Amino acid sequence: MGRPVYRSVTDIPGDVDLAVVTVPARYVKGLVPELAAKNAKGMLLITSGFREVGETGAAMEKEIVDAAAAAGILVLGPNTMGMCNPHAQLYCSAAHAYPVPGSTALVCQSGNMGTQLLAFAEQQGIGIRAFSGSGNEAMVTIEDYMEAFEADALTRTVVLYIESVKDGRRFQQCERVSAKPVVVLKGGRTEMGRQAAASHTGAMASNTRVFDAACRQTGIIQVDQPLELLDLSAVFSSLPLPRGNRVAIMTLGGGWGVIATDLCTEHGLAVPPLSDGIIDRLDGLLPDFWSHGNPVDLVGEGNPDVPKTCLEELLRWDGCDAVIHLGIHGKSVLVNNMAASISHADPSITNDQITGFKQMVLATEDDYTRFVVRMTRKYSKPVLGVSLLTDGESKILYRFDDLDYKGVFFVSPERAVKSLAAMVRYQDWRRRHGGKQIPVETCPDLF
Amino acid sequence: MGRPVYRSVTDIPGDVDLAVVTVPARYVKGLVPELAAKNAKGMLLITSGFREVGETGAAMEKEIVDAAAAAGILVLGPNTMGMCNPHAQLYCSAAHAYPVPGSTALVCQSGNMGTQLLAFAEQQGIGIRAFSGSGNEAMVTIEDYMEAFEADALTRTVVLYIESVKDGRRFQQCERVSAKPVVVLKGGRTEMGRQAAASHTGAMASNTRVFDAACRQTGIIQVDQPLELLDLSAVFSSLPLPRGNRVAIMTLGGGWGVIATDLCTEHGLAVPPLSDGIIDRLDGLLPDFWSHGNPVDLVGEGNPDVPKTCLEELLRWDGCDAVIHLGIHGKSVLVNNMAASISHADPSITNDQITGFKQMVLATEDDYTRFVVRMTRKYSKPVLGVSLLTDGESKILYRFDDLDYKGVFFVSPERAVKSLAAMVRYQDWRRRHGGKQIPVETCPDLF
Repeated sequence: MGRPVYRSVTDIPGDVDLAVVTVPARYVKGLVPELAAKNAKGMLLITSGFREVGETGAAMEKEIVDAAAAAGILVLGPNTMGMCNPHAQLYCSAAHAYPVPGSTALVCQSGNMGTQLLAFAEQQGIGIRAFSGSGNEAMVTIEDYMEAFEADALTRTVVLYIESVKDGRRFQQCERVSAKPVVVLKGGRTEMGRQAAASHTGAMASNTRVFDAACRQTGIIQVDQPLELLDLSAVFSSLPLPRGNRVAIMTLGGGWGVIATDLCTEHGLAVPPLSDGIIDRLDGLLPDFWSHGNPVDLVGEGNPDVPKTCLEELLRWDGCDAVIHLGIHGKSVLVNNMAASISHADPSITNDQITGFKQMVLATEDDYTRFVVRMTRKYSKPVLGVSLLTDGESKILYRFDDLDYKGVFFVSPERAVKSLAAMVRYQDWRRRHGGKQIPVETCPDLF
Repeated sequence: MGRPVYRSVTDIPGDVDLAVVTVPARYVKGLVPELAAKNAKGMLLITSGFREVGETGAAMEKEIVDAAAAAGILVLGPNTMGMCNPHAQLYCSAAHAYPVPGSTALVCQSGNMGTQLLAFAEQQGIGIRAFSGSGNEAMVTIEDYMEAFEADALTRTVVLYIESVKDGRRFQQCERVSAKPVVVLKGGRTEMGRQAAASHTGAMASNTRVFDAACRQTGIIQVDQPLELLDLSAVFSSLPLPRGNRVAIMTLGGGWGVIATDLCTEHGLAVPPLSDGIIDRLDGLLPDFWSHGNPVDLVGEGNPDVPKTCLEELLRWDGCDAVIHLGIHGKSVLVNNMAASISHADPSITNDQITGFKQMVLATEDDYTRFVVRMTRKYSKPVLGVSLLTDGESKILYRFDDLDYKGVFFVSPERAVKSLAAMVRYQDWRRRHGGKQIPVETCPDLF
């Protein structure tokens, strides 16, 4: 494949920065002195067959770590799927996912969880600061990662999949890290789950109530589903925090407005009645039979300026802290379907006409998305969208080079509502703990 | 566009079966006698501006319904997005979605909910018996639809989005319908949601606790998120019902096994320990360091026969009623990524080699999916999959012309677990009410 290959580490000319090790477990210890001779600083130990398989493996793991520590070599793993750092274009994992550089630091005590989350981040346009599968954490532990991300200027959100915490007291000190949002999925919340975790990474049993309490005290946001980890990293890295829990809902069609209102109420968000002033102003924009309340139902209005004007009216309203808008974005999928219908019904339509039609809708959608992001900046309130329809081309995040915030569009109302509710809880925790919002100007997703 | 067009209904030669009406509200009443003269049996009234906009609209709606009833014309709507019947290739809606013919009957008291669900069904390969947006339900109501689907031999699952029920007693009689699974998302579960619903379809306030109790009594399955409606229709139309709540979990990688175990426990499913017999048999198949417990972690085993043999061992085990398998399907996305990595790393690789590699993986995946469906039939236990990775080409349902059950693969563990938990609850309700499982042989998704 045109790459230089050596029979042994000692054959490599010059120093080695990082060794990515995949040789069988029994040969790893012998590598340590060779790597030390090459001044290696790190060993990414992908090999498995250590502590997770029993006492002999655990003893072998300890020997390697002791030898590496004596030689000044950091060991990541063993039993890890690898790591990546998109900012440095360094990808050392079996995931073959290449997410864009960004501000979300991701650490997983599980390989397949990491594989899925990285691929999802790539598909959805979520920028990654760095990823590491922490494996058995023989040397570098979840607490080390958290301290590192605290100090790291490029990290804006920390996302963790954890099965066990080795040093509870150090973990709790991540209250300092919570100057940045920390989002955690805990594996082993139930007794059966803990038993499964024990056989997976050799994780010790942990008390869920203690872990929950530690998270509450330190402002760590817990989720219970894998994809929520990245939903939250998307909103935290793309939107300002809400000042309170009052939501204005704008919807193209009533059903989603009803569902979103139910979900808001069920997740601790308020959907306040519109003020008379705002009703008066919307009366001038919408057909007579509009909902005259929150949610604002645009009742199928086709003029592309109407949702824009309504959105700005709602954002400027001091009665709300955030806007959720549903069904205005995501028409491009519908339009592809419509174009197919039209071609089928009327063979005299030319491809150029169809292309022109699609391009017009896409341009309108792009214009609307830009407008949403500009308004997010202008009013410093988070705006979360739900796409009417999505396909393989749809993303959660839409970024524009000249805008700092991003367009956020979820596939269904509950994901938007749950994400906003988590932002509100986090902001509330920060306020009670005297925290300040990280200014968005530092958001490194613009890299 | 090459279609015959007439200036008025009376100009149409011969009789009219169904009138799809989109003229403004004030002109609709005048159509009724013209349609009666043409022996029309049905009017799909898409036009809005009736009861949902106030008293004048309500009066106009009543006049139309009275006149149509006198003339023997059924009115669907008004204020509806339309309907479709894929079995008859009849599509009358603005959704431009063309799902395959199937066994799920879908009724929505909301247009955008219907649009999204139809498009999702089309994308995911979920077969639709018929869809109707019921709109204001001026004449045909949700209770009528339920009675019709009870009698309809092609319907296997009934899926409803409801904001209000007009005739509670008739709705409750759908206990009979629950010989088929009925899945409901209720809009307006909260006070604010009810207010939003009132302005949307003019729905009356309803008591959520009464509705919840009615559902419990009649075996109707309630969900709280739109996409769950179709997740459940996918499993009910594709898999046998589980006999109990005991789940065997098979996973490629430990993290998902842990998460799935937690979710099972939290949703009322049991993850029982493996018997000694099954541990012995799996010992002969898996590397020494396998989990020796439930979940069964295949620990990255590359031999494609291993997951097949393990799956059959678990299905034949009388200690479990269902199998959830994670990460074995959905490698094709990973393989595309790998192929790109390989091409990038080694330009000497030919396109033919890459194509051959991809085809080999796809064939293995297809073979595995077929095997899963054959085993579902052989052991009459539901098997639910979670795909490792998904892209725009991935589906929830995979069907094979020569097999009656289908392969079911979700994008994340919680959707598989929640779907199985709903099947268990439904089966439990049926058992308590003396119901029998509908034999899968009648499953009309094979049409």
